[in-house]
Amino acid sequence: MVKSLIFSAPELKDYMVRFFCKLNVPLEDAKISADVLHAADLRGVNSHGIIRLHSYYGDRLLKGLIDPHAQTTILNETPAVQALDGGNGLGPAVAYRAMQTCIQKAKNTGVGVVTVRNSNHYGIAGYYAMMALPHNMIGISLTNSQPLVAPTYGSTALLGTNPISAAVPAGKSRPYVLDMATSIVPKGRITVYQKAEKELPADWGMDQNGSITRDPNQILDHGALLPLGGSDLMRGYKGYGLSLLVDLLSGVLPGAAFGPNVGRPTSTSPGANVGHFFAALNIEVFRPLIDFEREMDEYIHLLQEAPKEPGQERIYIHGEKEFELEEKYQREGIPLLTSVVQSLQAAGKTVGVEFDLQPLGELEDETTSQQH
Amino acid sequence: MVKSLIFSAPELKDYMVRFFCKLNVPLEDAKISADVLHAADLRGVNSHGIIRLHSYYGDRLLKGLIDPHAQTTILNETPAVQALDGGNGLGPAVAYRAMQTCIQKAKNTGVGVVTVRNSNHYGIAGYYAMMALPHNMIGISLTNSQPLVAPTYGSTALLGTNPISAAVPAGKSRPYVLDMATSIVPKGRITVYQKAEKELPADWGMDQNGSITRDPNQILDHGALLPLGGSDLMRGYKGYGLSLLVDLLSGVLPGAAFGPNVGRPTSTSPGANVGHFFAALNIEVFRPLIDFEREMDEYIHLLQEAPKEPGQERIYIHGEKEFELEEKYQREGIPLLTSVVQSLQAAGKTVGVEFDLQPLGELEDETTSQQH
Repeated sequence: MVKSLIFSAPELKDYMVRFFCKLNVPLEDAKISADVLHAADLRGVNSHGIIRLHSYYGDRLLKGLIDPHAQTTILNETPAVQALDGGNGLGPAVAYRAMQTCIQKAKNTGVGVVTVRNSNHYGIAGYYAMMALPHNMIGISLTNSQPLVAPTYGSTALLGTNPISAAVPAGKSRPYVLDMATSIVPKGRITVYQKAEKELPADWGMDQNGSITRDPNQILDHGALLPLGGSDLMRGYKGYGLSLLVDLLSGVLPGAAFGPNVGRPTSTSPGANVGHFFAALNIEVFRPLIDFEREMDEYIHLLQEAPKEPGQERIYIHGEKEFELEEKYQREGIPLLTSVVQSLQAAGKTVGVEFDLQPLGELEDETTSQQH
Repeated sequence: MVKSLIFSAPELKDYMVRFFCKLNVPLEDAKISADVLHAADLRGVNSHGIIRLHSYYGDRLLKGLIDPHAQTTILNETPAVQALDGGNGLGPAVAYRAMQTCIQKAKNTGVGVVTVRNSNHYGIAGYYAMMALPHNMIGISLTNSQPLVAPTYGSTALLGTNPISAAVPAGKSRPYVLDMATSIVPKGRITVYQKAEKELPADWGMDQNGSITRDPNQILDHGALLPLGGSDLMRGYKGYGLSLLVDLLSGVLPGAAFGPNVGRPTSTSPGANVGHFFAALNIEVFRPLIDFEREMDEYIHLLQEAPKEPGQERIYIHGEKEFELEEKYQREGIPLLTSVVQSLQAAGKTVGVEFDLQPLGELEDETTSQQH
């Protein structure tokens, strides 16, 4: 029986702020970074939430592998574009400012594009795409990531799970928010089955010889994930193509690392050199906002009301499940597995910020979902 | 035994120019449109080539459903963005000019985005993305299309196969050219199995009740295609999300039709109101072109030389197979099924431009691939 403890959402976020501050992260950047990780937990993408506070960020800050005081440098700029060097700063803080600039540029010229080199793991891609929403803009956020995915016909992990996120505002309806890895599933999904000592339910990966396997251990031991689509027959080369495209836009175009050279977020070496790509489109420059919002509502309604597959009751719009979960978690608190709580307590001791939050309650047999 | 006749590539293109001119399309637009259809044939995407000359274009021009003299109207403009109304013009001509503008804007500001409403079927998405290549730019081309794809958990076709195309230049290597439908396969792939009276080899679609079927007839008779990924377990909601995103960017943002309202390319009703979205990124604004090209070559080399899956000899870069086919077809001529030749002859009579080309030779049992 797996047990989870439930913690108040604002208290978890506040703890992360204190944690980052203790590691010499300036208060504003600590708040941004905590908010990005917190958003992942609230949206059910717990593989990118507080569970990574120490392994992706705290540990690397402690070891001097991420520079908390990094200055972002502008390499080049036009009224619509900015090319940035993140100075090996904290991924969320670097990415947040890049997206802010992107939105500012889109206000003036209708579109903004900002690329970033020399950054680190930035958390969930969707956070930055969603920053465009209150500005009545469409936001796009791409990042490359450590090699985990094999190209079609290849047998080794060369590409990242390189996510694509896009956020599109609606009128009365909730916005459309896509935030997807370009592999079938992320690594975390395989780990869930490994921990449970269960076979995978589908062909999500290959062993180190390039043969499809449903044994999670064989995938995680020098095997590779399959790109979206999977087999040739199901057009896995499209997922491979999307993963590669994300890397060309967020790795090669910004001048960051690419392919197998992208640093692992838990690496003990310096210079992860992760790259990001952000875009914002100012809707009102293309057509009256009121018309756009009305048609978004119509489209969403039309999809939701359409005939269902046998046995299904709802057709979801992307982001919908996550918004519902966020409302629930804000209201009822966020469940964390006891094993996660224990590692937070250990990390707290290492860093010198005791994890002293009191749980609001507990849950038995909570299988916290790992989406993305 | 299926028989194909081989025709000279330049002669086929020239015939299409004459065909369009006869239908009162101005010479320049006739040349553009012929070139777009021709590029599809050369690249092996014959479902979007000369086979559609009459059904998608000639027939609708004859019936006054496409305006060969349409004027494109600028709805709004900034130095980086243009929002266009295509005036119900010929899709390829409207799209070609929109992408030209997009490239021009990217020259000045580093990025260009052009949206189009009130257009028609524009052929292969990749044509316009590739227009960016000689300008040392990354090109992106999206379009919505007639409803053929069911959303995840839905049982009816509401979304188009809405393609994503992106072209990225390299140095000495061939460029990366992705041009993919966001469904697993396009409708034409199902038709191939229907004509051959064969079961599909995989779960590519559903019947009219929303149940998965491998009977091509049941998919084509009020059934629907599945989005890339397919089942829930294989994350088909990502393909659904990409298809929807393409429609939000190329349908809703430009103010074109969207979802089930997008006109069929063979429709006998006016006002298909197809929408397009184009973007261009000027590489040199982001980083020195020479560095970008060198790293593209390195990346492509690295993928090509990587260890292969058992039984595979090559890892392909997107567009590579198509470039190789194009070279072969330019050299040896393009094979057309005799049934296609017969319908070209019939259409030629209807329009008044006899299809009088002499075949260079013939092929037995040529199964012309329908990719995309």
